[in-house]
Amino acid sequence: MNTLPNSLTNLIDQLSLLPGVGKKTAQRLAFYLLKTDKDNLQNLSEAINELQAGVIECGTCGGFSENDTCKICLDPNRNEMVLCIVENAQDIFVFEKVNFFDGKYHVLGGSLSPLDGIGPDDLNISKLMDRVKLGMEVVIATNPTVEGETTALFLSNTFKEMDIKVTRIARGIPVGGDLEYTDEATIIRALEGRTLF
Amino acid sequence: MNTLPNSLTNLIDQLSLLPGVGKKTAQRLAFYLLKTDKDNLQNLSEAINELQAGVIECGTCGGFSENDTCKICLDPNRNEMVLCIVENAQDIFVFEKVNFFDGKYHVLGGSLSPLDGIGPDDLNISKLMDRVKLGMEVVIATNPTVEGETTALFLSNTFKEMDIKVTRIARGIPVGGDLEYTDEATIIRALEGRTLF
Repeated sequence: MNTLPNSLTNLIDQLSLLPGVGKKTAQRLAFYLLKTDKDNLQNLSEAINELQAGVIECGTCGGFSENDTCKICLDPNRNEMVLCIVENAQDIFVFEKVNFFDGKYHVLGGSLSPLDGIGPDDLNISKLMDRVKLGMEVVIATNPTVEGETTALFLSNTFKEMDIKVTRIARGIPVGGDLEYTDEATIIRALEGRTLF
Repeated sequence: MNTLPNSLTNLIDQLSLLPGVGKKTAQRLAFYLLKTDKDNLQNLSEAINELQAGVIECGTCGGFSENDTCKICLDPNRNEMVLCIVENAQDIFVFEKVNFFDGKYHVLGGSLSPLDGIGPDDLNISKLMDRVKLGMEVVIATNPTVEGETTALFLSNTFKEMDIKVTRIARGIPVGGDLEYTDEATIIRALEGRTLF
């Protein structure tokens, strides 16, 4: 017999659906929320409820936005001539966090995967073609996976034909990593990508 | 500059307040929720919102309940003469999960801690005294911490004076544990509590 109140069981079930949240973590969170301040609870509930309504896709880059065009695309201080291409909207966030890149972004909405039937037409590429112009640098920042590399290769060939400068973010030993535990593919990339001191 | 939409930042902040959820986990969860089905999102939001209204304290045992008296206290199949005393309401859940104990519970709402100024009057003890009767077995299931043991000692002395049978849940090597990595206090308890084969 389940002796817990229904509202508690229901929340535990809902929390268990989250990625990386198992039954035990869901229980711990639910018991915590049961004791937390009523205002906190309501704030969390509202934040979840209002999340999707408050986020739309930027009509220009495809990133997260509150309005038709996102803050980055509207920012006049951003370098129009450097365009960083990422697979997913949250990848923009990864670059923005380090506060180092001052160009703009373009979200593909995925990566080429012939096995899954995902071709160039399934990605946000036609809009990308409209944005790319001569004299621009295109930085390809797809993931270093088979699909990401395939996508990078496809895009670099396309842009090279258009005489546009294409670069790829460096792949190598992560900072703080250990050579001994680094896989072979990464070691090869690190050697290939070596730079002058 | 924060380039994320406000509703996303707000949810990340709210999720970061949860125990064991850091900034990174909060981001991962928020990005997941952003893409999840709208119904799922609303279910989660409602489950959180309705949690506290759906859970009150059982007037008899102090456990979680939907009504004035909880399911366990109302259950006629439960043994009235065995009363398990726990510190917190969620401890009941720990025992209920294993489906082994068929008695009833009593929640103290904490443990004795003279250093923090928590004495017997701060715990749910007067109601406990009303429930305890001759011929009953009282199982003390407070945590094996300094405060829990202090509370257990206090209660056992009180009940012994009343000629009531008092037991304490066994402390010893956890099942699946390793002797080599077991602390000394637990080893001592395991030896003290040894039973005939």
